[in-house]
Amino acid sequence: MTTTEPIKLYTALVCPYAQRANIALKEAGVEYESIEIDLQNKPSWYTDVNPESKVPAITVRGKNIAESLVIIELVADLYPEAKYMSFRLLPKDPVKRAQVRFFIEYYSSKIGSLQLKVLASLNDKEALNGIFAQFRDGLKRANQLLLEQSPTGPYFLGDQFSLADVAIAPFIARFQVFRDNYLEDFVIPEEYDRLLSWGKALQERESFKETWPGSEFILQAYAKRINK
Amino acid sequence: MTTTEPIKLYTALVCPYAQRANIALKEAGVEYESIEIDLQNKPSWYTDVNPESKVPAITVRGKNIAESLVIIELVADLYPEAKYMSFRLLPKDPVKRAQVRFFIEYYSSKIGSLQLKVLASLNDKEALNGIFAQFRDGLKRANQLLLEQSPTGPYFLGDQFSLADVAIAPFIARFQVFRDNYLEDFVIPEEYDRLLSWGKALQERESFKETWPGSEFILQAYAKRINK
Repeated sequence: MTTTEPIKLYTALVCPYAQRANIALKEAGVEYESIEIDLQNKPSWYTDVNPESKVPAITVRGKNIAESLVIIELVADLYPEAKYMSFRLLPKDPVKRAQVRFFIEYYSSKIGSLQLKVLASLNDKEALNGIFAQFRDGLKRANQLLLEQSPTGPYFLGDQFSLADVAIAPFIARFQVFRDNYLEDFVIPEEYDRLLSWGKALQERESFKETWPGSEFILQAYAKRINK
Repeated sequence: MTTTEPIKLYTALVCPYAQRANIALKEAGVEYESIEIDLQNKPSWYTDVNPESKVPAITVRGKNIAESLVIIELVADLYPEAKYMSFRLLPKDPVKRAQVRFFIEYYSSKIGSLQLKVLASLNDKEALNGIFAQFRDGLKRANQLLLEQSPTGPYFLGDQFSLADVAIAPFIARFQVFRDNYLEDFVIPEEYDRLLSWGKALQERESFKETWPGSEFILQAYAKRINK
């Protein structure tokens, strides 16, 4: 095992967690081998890579590492000065780094975690309204956190693209597909314009577009989870 | 707000998440103001510090940061060369850092998360056996991960105390109190000796002992959650 062995990423187009890892590696401008894992029919050898058998996982210097947030932190650590040497996926300032990490934790646990619940509750109006209320509370605070960090954006830290954007973009894009197709009643209030323009900027980012499988693919892949 | 303003930590003796933050700060050898929050009767001003109203939270350079794992990473970033300058709470090597972070995620989600379920199920033998089976699976893999990292220990990384130890020590100590008092049937197999000696070493660490409220305190604090 040498340190020049290329990075291998075990991924699945459908999976937002795997897309995080792909975006981080694209931003770092590193060559890597992408290995698509069929989540409906995982190859038996994959438990040797990740005993939990989930994606993403990554092989770096002969070591296998799982968990999407661990992987994107690893990419930031391996390539502290990302592709164009004009930004870092994690800023140098310790307090800013903590704010990036807190935002990821907040968004993931309070908002991202609701997305699959929405899909499962599409034909239960009451349950859906309850989830929407939690969603709006989460989005309100997310909008505040974005404004505190940078009033203008477009990214979480302002001009600088960071792990906060890497980690959340896949969730925003998937939610937008669900909303456009199944949730026309769910309107994000216009006063959350920092949040709305942030979501748009994330989906226009090159590294996002290169790793996005398209709305039709997402709809078909999630069809079984959609209870309508 | 100056950078010399002392760190404030909002904490609660009962809380394993808060103990993580306290241990990290003790290891860093930094002076900090510790503010005990009564979790049964939180002061109204505390939502200004943490809108989610949980402990721990920390004030650094006038910024309030919540979430225990975010806080211990922040301490590692603020004081990269910890107290005696002979070790780092997070090693320099990116792969080792990822292994530390993966271990924390694994232990927290697969083992730590079961501890309160155990307390709630003490009078339901069947439920308890189910939880114990999950526990043993998690402990088996944790023992493997410890052996892969260092066959001898005593800490996760070997001689070097790290965030993996900081994050898990509070959970091991609380589980041990529950076990000694309520779960005499639950035996951790002796072949997991790396895991067992690691747990012992964590509880002998000075920073752990300085921040541990004692078994009696823990038993009384958790009395309401104990369904027996």
